[in-house]
Amino acid sequence: MVSNKRILIIGGVAAGTSAASKARRIDPDAEIKIIQEEPVVSYGACGMPYVIEGLIDNFNRLIARPAERFKNKYNIDIIANTRAVKIDGLNKKVYAETLNPKDNGNEYSSAAPIRLIFDYDSLVIATGARSAVPKIKGIFVNDDTSNQVKGSSTMVKGLLLLRNYSDGIHIQDSIRNSKSCVIIGAGLIGVEMAEAFRRRGMDVTIVEMADYVLPSLLNEGMADIVKRELEDNGVKLVLGEGLEEVVTSSHSSSRDVRYLELVRTTKKKEIATDLVLLGTGVRPNSEIAKNAGIELGVHDAIRVDEHMRTNVPNIFAAGDCATARNYITNKDVYLPLGTTANKQGRVAGENAAGGNAEFKGVAGSVITKTFDLYIGKTGLDKQEALENDFDPVEKEIKSVTRAGYYPNKKSILIKLVADKKSRRILGAQIVGGEAVKGRIDLLAFALLVRATVDNLANYDACYVPPVSPVWEPINIAASQTAKLFTG
Amino acid sequence: MVSNKRILIIGGVAAGTSAASKARRIDPDAEIKIIQEEPVVSYGACGMPYVIEGLIDNFNRLIARPAERFKNKYNIDIIANTRAVKIDGLNKKVYAETLNPKDNGNEYSSAAPIRLIFDYDSLVIATGARSAVPKIKGIFVNDDTSNQVKGSSTMVKGLLLLRNYSDGIHIQDSIRNSKSCVIIGAGLIGVEMAEAFRRRGMDVTIVEMADYVLPSLLNEGMADIVKRELEDNGVKLVLGEGLEEVVTSSHSSSRDVRYLELVRTTKKKEIATDLVLLGTGVRPNSEIAKNAGIELGVHDAIRVDEHMRTNVPNIFAAGDCATARNYITNKDVYLPLGTTANKQGRVAGENAAGGNAEFKGVAGSVITKTFDLYIGKTGLDKQEALENDFDPVEKEIKSVTRAGYYPNKKSILIKLVADKKSRRILGAQIVGGEAVKGRIDLLAFALLVRATVDNLANYDACYVPPVSPVWEPINIAASQTAKLFTG
Repeated sequence: MVSNKRILIIGGVAAGTSAASKARRIDPDAEIKIIQEEPVVSYGACGMPYVIEGLIDNFNRLIARPAERFKNKYNIDIIANTRAVKIDGLNKKVYAETLNPKDNGNEYSSAAPIRLIFDYDSLVIATGARSAVPKIKGIFVNDDTSNQVKGSSTMVKGLLLLRNYSDGIHIQDSIRNSKSCVIIGAGLIGVEMAEAFRRRGMDVTIVEMADYVLPSLLNEGMADIVKRELEDNGVKLVLGEGLEEVVTSSHSSSRDVRYLELVRTTKKKEIATDLVLLGTGVRPNSEIAKNAGIELGVHDAIRVDEHMRTNVPNIFAAGDCATARNYITNKDVYLPLGTTANKQGRVAGENAAGGNAEFKGVAGSVITKTFDLYIGKTGLDKQEALENDFDPVEKEIKSVTRAGYYPNKKSILIKLVADKKSRRILGAQIVGGEAVKGRIDLLAFALLVRATVDNLANYDACYVPPVSPVWEPINIAASQTAKLFTG
Repeated sequence: MVSNKRILIIGGVAAGTSAASKARRIDPDAEIKIIQEEPVVSYGACGMPYVIEGLIDNFNRLIARPAERFKNKYNIDIIANTRAVKIDGLNKKVYAETLNPKDNGNEYSSAAPIRLIFDYDSLVIATGARSAVPKIKGIFVNDDTSNQVKGSSTMVKGLLLLRNYSDGIHIQDSIRNSKSCVIIGAGLIGVEMAEAFRRRGMDVTIVEMADYVLPSLLNEGMADIVKRELEDNGVKLVLGEGLEEVVTSSHSSSRDVRYLELVRTTKKKEIATDLVLLGTGVRPNSEIAKNAGIELGVHDAIRVDEHMRTNVPNIFAAGDCATARNYITNKDVYLPLGTTANKQGRVAGENAAGGNAEFKGVAGSVITKTFDLYIGKTGLDKQEALENDFDPVEKEIKSVTRAGYYPNKKSILIKLVADKKSRRILGAQIVGGEAVKGRIDLLAFALLVRATVDNLANYDACYVPPVSPVWEPINIAASQTAKLFTG
């Protein structure tokens, strides 16, 4: 029997394309459509800093699967340059309108949109997130999904965001004639782009409100080594200060365009700069869901259960627009990441096609790279553990990435957080070389199976001098954490 | 109250020095002595290939702590160049005799030994292992712990072992005037030394009895990629053939020394060579224990319980001379590795000083590197799982070490073995880049906590393009393994 199921997906990056592909595997006959605002689909947004840095030669290298392949290989229709504007959950319809491709950039467009109506049996909302920009004196950033940056009603040249494909291309274009950039926020975007800009020979300053870098990943002491790495590579850091004002000026040639002059920090420091990159976090594109009566959850993300179901029948949500369950606390969190988007998308796609897949949740595993350092976190820090009614202890150790005698070994810092009552591991922060990835993953796995620090002290780690000291640092950290329980 | 406890340790490499250091931390007043055959203690034997390769400039760089530091910093006496010859467990005495340092090399010595007697309250046997050399026509290898290689009663120049510190130095000396080496055995020593010799510009042939390389780590299909890596780097492989004969000749200048001419394989292939390295495994130095009535276990290693106790009161054993409990099967295994030696040594040292520490066992986690490949194993392969009454399935997947668009990504092959009844993970083999270490460790941890493949399919792996694809390969491998259960 041929299915005539109509599966509609709003959003065509990580979650949306994962959902579509999985739905196709489950139901070979369904009609599957993706409505996508951007001109491209299925791109690896996390790769944009490496293109800007020059390590990857072209943005289109980030496109995993072009739109034509979805059509030709999977019979999935991509309706690109089109924005969904309204969901009618009762009548199972989505209203959309075409966009002039320029709407995705920082330029105005005046082409009249074409209105479209789509019927669905199952809908997956995968609208993603947009840059969350605080109110800043001197500029105005559109609060809708297009995130156009303007100075009052005029365009500001040199003010940058990094979220969409077109943002990446815009940055690449902008740095051709620029010598300096101030990055607002020392988060993932901030430290990754600081490296990219430095490798392009630019003068880089990061302004961060917290007293240390990467505050979403690390506690203060652990962040020192990252601060040194940034400074050793010529990045200037202004910590404990926020952005107060962006000062622009107009040129006589164009009334509608204003040019960046300088930024002024909350402590009145003035930094003259060609470019400003706002790396101040993201917020979910959940308005279309909210307007359709779909319940929002933490951080205004679309509230989903483990099957990626919203509270409205036949409507699923996945990826950066949706919540995820933290598998340590069993509470909903909003932590938009590519890995989660892919996994949630797959679950949503399977269930939209009639399946019963389950997403097992997240530990909050994050890793980033800046210059030669990798920085990772999984689970809770001590403060988060306290807020979740654990009785946490924490222990920080320093070890190395190779045998003592092996050349080019690096330091590795590991902080573990564990619960005194249950001896359970609750979280970890690690700073070191490439092997941070494997160690964070091991701890994320330990968190899933609710392992104790005793388990972590006693697993049989493998050893070869080029990639590890004979005593595995996690074994050491766990064994020293366990000692705190007897105190 | 000052303890007058006498803690005696036979053996001063990994297990012995770990035991001594830990005993000192537990009992600041005990008299602690280490009897050590070799002139040096506390060296990283696993680092020898990298010294021979020229990556590390001197063998003494491998010495973690020189004998003087044991005395000066920890008040631990090192009695070097001394061989324990008899244990009297009833009267708590160890008989020893001094060695001429040359006894540790491949030369004769005729200095008369000095006999020594040591009293102990606790004894730790950490005598290690020696090269296990099969009977080979044309040569005679001493079966005692000194492992001198001789041709009947004469010395054979160019026949090499790699086990002790002096073996390493002997190889380094030998390759100065040598252009070629045949390595017998494609195990850890074989593939690591093949790289070392090639990097010194030598002609290298490995002769291996099995039809594929690294048979102790990999199954046949997985080993193909390692074979290619060796061949791509100029290593000649003779597989499915053993060593039948070593042909030597005498020079007129010295009657007592014979020189290597060629090796003849079991299939009558003749390979002319300057050097032959015997990488045919190791066997425990357990004779002194056996002669003292101490029970031996699997592979004639000293049988120990989880407290590192032998069957004789107050006598412990640890490291390459002892058994270890496999924490998947709960059976004793003999798998002499530096990591296990350090851990067992620490437990033995603590308990010798009156503690009650426990060694939690091994998964059989092994990793090796040859050229740009890392190869790891943990747990059981399918055959081993069958032999242990599991109902195993296995699944092999191929993935990559970085995001698809990121430069210099490499292939990674993962094979998982799992039990159909319990869905438990039973073992893994991985071939890839440096990140093999972290992934094997994660699986070794999963084995300890008896995790299922479902757990492994669902942990929240971290992701950043330079060190991982967005879908963690272990998640993929586990999820595909889980699918086999429903078939």
